[in-house]
Amino acid sequence: MTRREVESVEDRIREHLRRDDLDSAVELLRALSPGDALELLDRSEPRMVPVLFRLLDKSTAVHVFAAMETGQQSDLVRQLQDGQVQDLFAELRVSGQARLLDEMPATVARKMLAGLDAEARGEVGRLLGYPADSVGRRLRMAPVRLREDWTVAVALQNLRDHGGREQAAIVSVPVVSPQARLTGVVDVSVLVTQPLDARVSEIMREPVSAVATEDAEEVARLCADRRLWTVPVTDSEGRLIGVFTVADALEVLDEESTEDAARAGGVEPLGRPYLATSVLALMRSRITWLLVLAIGATLTVQVLGVFEDTLEEMVVLSLFIPLIIGTGGNTGNQAATTVTRALALDDVRPRDAPRVMFRELRVGMALGGCIGLLGLVIAGLVFSWPVGLVIGATLFTVCSFAATVGGLMPLAARTIGADPAVFSNPFISTLVDALGLVVYFFIAQAVLGI
Amino acid sequence: MTRREVESVEDRIREHLRRDDLDSAVELLRALSPGDALELLDRSEPRMVPVLFRLLDKSTAVHVFAAMETGQQSDLVRQLQDGQVQDLFAELRVSGQARLLDEMPATVARKMLAGLDAEARGEVGRLLGYPADSVGRRLRMAPVRLREDWTVAVALQNLRDHGGREQAAIVSVPVVSPQARLTGVVDVSVLVTQPLDARVSEIMREPVSAVATEDAEEVARLCADRRLWTVPVTDSEGRLIGVFTVADALEVLDEESTEDAARAGGVEPLGRPYLATSVLALMRSRITWLLVLAIGATLTVQVLGVFEDTLEEMVVLSLFIPLIIGTGGNTGNQAATTVTRALALDDVRPRDAPRVMFRELRVGMALGGCIGLLGLVIAGLVFSWPVGLVIGATLFTVCSFAATVGGLMPLAARTIGADPAVFSNPFISTLVDALGLVVYFFIAQAVLGI
Repeated sequence: MTRREVESVEDRIREHLRRDDLDSAVELLRALSPGDALELLDRSEPRMVPVLFRLLDKSTAVHVFAAMETGQQSDLVRQLQDGQVQDLFAELRVSGQARLLDEMPATVARKMLAGLDAEARGEVGRLLGYPADSVGRRLRMAPVRLREDWTVAVALQNLRDHGGREQAAIVSVPVVSPQARLTGVVDVSVLVTQPLDARVSEIMREPVSAVATEDAEEVARLCADRRLWTVPVTDSEGRLIGVFTVADALEVLDEESTEDAARAGGVEPLGRPYLATSVLALMRSRITWLLVLAIGATLTVQVLGVFEDTLEEMVVLSLFIPLIIGTGGNTGNQAATTVTRALALDDVRPRDAPRVMFRELRVGMALGGCIGLLGLVIAGLVFSWPVGLVIGATLFTVCSFAATVGGLMPLAARTIGADPAVFSNPFISTLVDALGLVVYFFIAQAVLGI
Repeated sequence: MTRREVESVEDRIREHLRRDDLDSAVELLRALSPGDALELLDRSEPRMVPVLFRLLDKSTAVHVFAAMETGQQSDLVRQLQDGQVQDLFAELRVSGQARLLDEMPATVARKMLAGLDAEARGEVGRLLGYPADSVGRRLRMAPVRLREDWTVAVALQNLRDHGGREQAAIVSVPVVSPQARLTGVVDVSVLVTQPLDARVSEIMREPVSAVATEDAEEVARLCADRRLWTVPVTDSEGRLIGVFTVADALEVLDEESTEDAARAGGVEPLGRPYLATSVLALMRSRITWLLVLAIGATLTVQVLGVFEDTLEEMVVLSLFIPLIIGTGGNTGNQAATTVTRALALDDVRPRDAPRVMFRELRVGMALGGCIGLLGLVIAGLVFSWPVGLVIGATLFTVCSFAATVGGLMPLAARTIGADPAVFSNPFISTLVDALGLVVYFFIAQAVLGI
């Protein structure tokens, strides 16, 4: 179905539900593919989600549930019956089960686990043993594996015999020693294009692997940068545990981008689609940062209070307050944005701090030179040349300072183990705003002699 | 090599180059893998990049060049000799060639094309015929294909015979009719795990395909959301042209995230690693937005000019200017950030504008209620209750307004075909700042009777 068709079905289902015509709604809903059904749920009001979900047929429901974001799954679990939850939970991939369990209160988690057999419970338990953001949590377990001394023909036969279970992950296949130690990797694309009598040892490549406790984002970045189909994951002794595929990498990096974008804008990530998030949850995702920033901004009230006499004497100075702190904030944000993304891409590291500082100082002076000159001329023409000089000199100083601080903040955050996007924003605005105003009034007092 | 080892090699190479000890530098450099060599170049000052690149051995140079971002490639091309450029260019994938040609002036592009044979030139030409951001530009051309009536054994034999060329893309294989029309897709993981005598028609699935002129980002999002290994790409008549893989999707979405993150922070994307970007280029990526925002901010100077008499009478009002416009800007940004990301993820569309407006108005009023109450109490205690009332009422109004505007701006941008991240930022800050001040002074005049 095209997007437009899905949208029209969406409108019609809503209309049927409004009129309590359940049968017609069910009929339309059951004609949707799982992908289209998920799209419909993603774009429904929070209170409608469980209603619509209950109307799905069972196999679609399983697919839709598996493809939901974890936050959305946990919202839904709270509104379904235990038996249904157990069925849905049992159908998730092990890594999905581990993530959902992490979100649930212990009592609910226990109920969900009760629906699994002992082996499956053991697997989830093993994944939950790895740190929360580690690649171990994202594993596809027990992948098929090859031996070095096999021929291509034997390897293919083996995949046919044993490849069923984690089929989706068969895209590059790990090669292991008799002690289950990882010795190489064969891409399936190579396996199916090489002569049947070639040895696995001749066609395999050096594995680029990860240890299960490593950070998932770093492994995903490795996977993306080296363009690998899968990264085999081992325990600390080099024994193969599972694989992490490029599809998993895409998921991890997408989540990270969403989080970074959110935090750069001063919002906590929602963990669920926007329209399916309640107004209360939207408010909760923003209130903390808004309060932190507002409390930081009371510093500017205090700074201005100190210079109240100067302001009283020359009210014209107050006209430029928004322009000056705005320009400082923008310059600082620009630098922080560039360096934060460079950090995420591993293009820059904390040890580069001196180089970053020197570059940002030069960029800030260049930017401040342009903006300051403009400010000098305009304020000079409209008001007076002394005022123009104050504005120009302030803009130059504030830009140079803001770019330097903005460039260094993300590195400082990374060094102390904080999230660069979260940490930079409030510090830059508070520091740059308050210090910018101090600079402004000192320059004004010096130039205007007040 | 571990990251630390690469970093130490990096330091030693720089040291050798500083002492003009070229031989030792080359020795160290040639011991690096292509991946490590690229990392070294990514983190080198712009003027060092061509120096280091020329010291690489030829096969590493080819790999490193192919893995560079397009902006970096084009910087390098300008500093190498024609012959060397032709060799490097010829080794790129067709889609990489098309992207690089787009960045180069016509004379250089002609020289680069001169190094290709007629067939390869034809392929690049064909890709360049698709729109700039289309999935056609990202194609892997001429993939191996299967026929419905083949058995698995025949299909595998066929891959062995003809799969060599675009081997990296063999992960799901398109099935075509005798007229080359796409009829299905078989994942290689299925192909290698099914009985040899099964028919392709029995094991293939419905293809989720794209037309070459479709937007690359949308196809990448489809690939990610549906967890597909590849999306076959056809012409407008449904004939198979090539495939777009999950690895390509990852690349496209990564680029988009980088662009969105940059633009949300008021910066043009660099197209090359941060440390390898010149200070001039960094400045150029920021100056336009900084000027636009500064010129927008002159509106606040004018608004304040209108209320200069009020300010003159009550200087205390000027103390809260940064707090009020800061809070308004933050609230607007939060809403814009959330909706922009939701748009990028296709969780929200322009037709949802009424729902978004209503939600954001409620969120804004809730946030404004909290912050306003706090402002009322603090300003009331520190200054006076009438001042507290002005601050509280202003914060409430500004937050409600800012969230609504912030939520709607990205949708408005998308509707008129502009980039939501670029468009929202300056409009929100200018509009919210200026109108926030107008609201502030009107409320002050009403409450304080001035």
